Amino acid sequence: MKKVVKFGGSSLASAQQFEKVGNIIRSDEGRRYVIPSAPGKRNSGDRKVTDMLYACYALAEEGKDFRVKLAEIKARYDEIITGLSLDFSLAEDFKEIEEKFKNKAGKDYAASRGEYLNGKIMAQYLGYTFVDSASVVCFDKKGEFDAEKTNEKMSAKLSKTERAVIPGFFGAMPDGSIKTFSRGGSDITGSIVARAVKADVYENWTDVSGFMIADPRIINKPQSIEIITYTELRELAYMGASVLHEDSIFPVRKEGIPINIRNTNKPEDEGTWIVESTARKSKYTITGIAGKKGFCCVNISKDMMNSEIGFVRKVLQSFEDHDISIEHVPSGIDTMTVFVHEDDFISKEQAVVSEIHRLAKPDMLEIESDLGLIAVVGRGMKSTRGTAGRIFSALAHANVNVRMIDQGSSELNIIIGVENRDFEKAISAIYDIFVETQL
Amino acid sequence: MKKVVKFGGSSLASAQQFEKVGNIIRSDEGRRYVIPSAPGKRNSGDRKVTDMLYACYALAEEGKDFRVKLAEIKARYDEIITGLSLDFSLAEDFKEIEEKFKNKAGKDYAASRGEYLNGKIMAQYLGYTFVDSASVVCFDKKGEFDAEKTNEKMSAKLSKTERAVIPGFFGAMPDGSIKTFSRGGSDITGSIVARAVKADVYENWTDVSGFMIADPRIINKPQSIEIITYTELRELAYMGASVLHEDSIFPVRKEGIPINIRNTNKPEDEGTWIVESTARKSKYTITGIAGKKGFCCVNISKDMMNSEIGFVRKVLQSFEDHDISIEHVPSGIDTMTVFVHEDDFISKEQAVVSEIHRLAKPDMLEIESDLGLIAVVGRGMKSTRGTAGRIFSALAHANVNVRMIDQGSSELNIIIGVENRDFEKAISAIYDIFVETQL
Repeated sequence: MKKVVKFGGSSLASAQQFEKVGNIIRSDEGRRYVIPSAPGKRNSGDRKVTDMLYACYALAEEGKDFRVKLAEIKARYDEIITGLSLDFSLAEDFKEIEEKFKNKAGKDYAASRGEYLNGKIMAQYLGYTFVDSASVVCFDKKGEFDAEKTNEKMSAKLSKTERAVIPGFFGAMPDGSIKTFSRGGSDITGSIVARAVKADVYENWTDVSGFMIADPRIINKPQSIEIITYTELRELAYMGASVLHEDSIFPVRKEGIPINIRNTNKPEDEGTWIVESTARKSKYTITGIAGKKGFCCVNISKDMMNSEIGFVRKVLQSFEDHDISIEHVPSGIDTMTVFVHEDDFISKEQAVVSEIHRLAKPDMLEIESDLGLIAVVGRGMKSTRGTAGRIFSALAHANVNVRMIDQGSSELNIIIGVENRDFEKAISAIYDIFVETQL
Repeated sequence: MKKVVKFGGSSLASAQQFEKVGNIIRSDEGRRYVIPSAPGKRNSGDRKVTDMLYACYALAEEGKDFRVKLAEIKARYDEIITGLSLDFSLAEDFKEIEEKFKNKAGKDYAASRGEYLNGKIMAQYLGYTFVDSASVVCFDKKGEFDAEKTNEKMSAKLSKTERAVIPGFFGAMPDGSIKTFSRGGSDITGSIVARAVKADVYENWTDVSGFMIADPRIINKPQSIEIITYTELRELAYMGASVLHEDSIFPVRKEGIPINIRNTNKPEDEGTWIVESTARKSKYTITGIAGKKGFCCVNISKDMMNSEIGFVRKVLQSFEDHDISIEHVPSGIDTMTVFVHEDDFISKEQAVVSEIHRLAKPDMLEIESDLGLIAVVGRGMKSTRGTAGRIFSALAHANVNVRMIDQGSSELNIIIGVENRDFEKAISAIYDIFVETQL
């Protein structure tokens, strides 16, 4: 069993958290490759070490004295080292960092030290080999991540390393200068390592017991998702659910490696499994609900539209010509609706409208704004009759005005358009009917 | 009050039916312009006079003796004349018809005599002026109906005629030769007359008390529709409901004249009103249900499709390039479905598929057939919460597998995709929940 385990910042914010992490790793022989983040907040008033590093380096860049700030950062690490009773010092590292800050080694270098130093402590604490990501995570000359070269180097290095700590978030360009990932951070490093060692599982340890069925800002303590496919995850992420960034899924998806989202503070919880495909039914008919506000729609009608070859295409062309991506195109008889993001559309609306008139000659055209789109996602929907009925009955009961419905033949999701002001109400109603009522 | 009244063939099949029509016309002073069809079937084993005329003329065209057949037709009219105790003969007319048949005056001429002769009897019976449609309904040299010239001539003629009978179904080309409407027949003539005289209402008398909410071949004795808008009618007609032909609605729609579908055999029934717009709610939430079988769908998926500008357009382009008109394009996240008519698509499917691959590079493409589309139409749906919930709960209850849902922002109709074998079951379930349960 070969497991890659990534720990988020809150799992590594203090010596106490490090001990939890240590216990987790030692409880399973398979947890051989560890990817730490930088120390996060210890409490809600605290600062993340990465943010402290950015602030400290900003002073350095301006030629100001940054030593006090750097000492504060060192204190954070020393507190962890002392708390863990390690016979170990980062004094040499901090001397080098001070030197490089003076020489303006760059923001990416500065930020990357959070993971780098935490990795050093972690390796010491666990007795694992420390592998500097700068030597195995490769960016090209333009600063683009080089997936294949990285995979080659990482595989080669780790095949000779039984147990290793590889700090997340950064790598190096061909000239050796440090480069960080722009989005997804340490999650990506973990995924890259999992791919390179052909891990059986990629465990992503955070401070929640997996992904929630719905947004906890809307639903009070939502249930978590037990198992979700990559496709479902993509769909929820696309509709605004805060789950793993796409870039951090891609490397393991390629190898069919499952991801397990776990909670460092509740290691007994099974968390959420993210898999390529599964025969396991989800506990509820739906897997998740997500949504976004801020859409516009353009309603177009024309007599005999459906028999006019090319009509829909001409309308869509008008949006494409103005570089506006289209969200959904539900259609009736002689009517069609185009949903677009308000931000993309508003500044160009009149240009698009006049092109539609010119190309497609509609009888009527009307624009509406302040709409939200909600996606109800679930592989279980296809085999459960009555899903649509339950959704729309629940929405009616909650007095939500359904402005649009789109369900294609994949039957893996239903998209529902509502007014912005009904958005939260609609999500609550759908959650209740599938999750609360089911119990 | 100026009413234009059109009577269908079954309303004029016998002297007894003529008497009903006479009573209807005489009961309302406003019924000043009458458009008769040719005599229809008197019973289920009978033949329509128009069909008899076609058969008779076919003999004439082949140079065979058609006099026996023509005598049979004359007998049909004589039976009506005798039954109505009219002092009137069509002998001269039949002499002329025989002459023209010999000279091969054309199929259109032959067919038109059914209405022409019935019009003459009707005028005699009512004491109204007979106006030959050949003098007021104009086709151009190419045989296309000339709406504006007709309107001019018809208005001029009828403004000087207090009460008139104008036979339906035909007119004349500039050289005087008779030309019939290809589709819609006498319904069109009625509509043209209503427009020309700026009628208050166009009454279309048939043998049913208006349009039915659903197809009577699927629903046993469906309720009839009390009031329907032009738009709703178009939608139902498009989805296969047998209602008035589009061409017969266009002239009155232009003038905002309401159409009233009535039953000659039950003149006390109010029938169906077809109007431009109305504040009158329909009795049920829905106005009508219609549907068609024989659709295919092409399911396409591609990661990140929604953020790829032009993706949907490229897919639709592939259909357009092969002259295939698209019925519906429901979409999910990273998936889209294109519904097309099986007849249009099957012979070209591989060409379309390869063009989609070339232009849009989907991850997955899959074709399904044997699908039906059902439209639930109703202006009342927008203001009635829970319509969608009721539809999909009813379908679930009836074990119908819903393959597609499309509802745009117009909210005037919902399109539902089902498998062909669930088609009738689905329509019954929707009819029951809105019409039967409502009572």
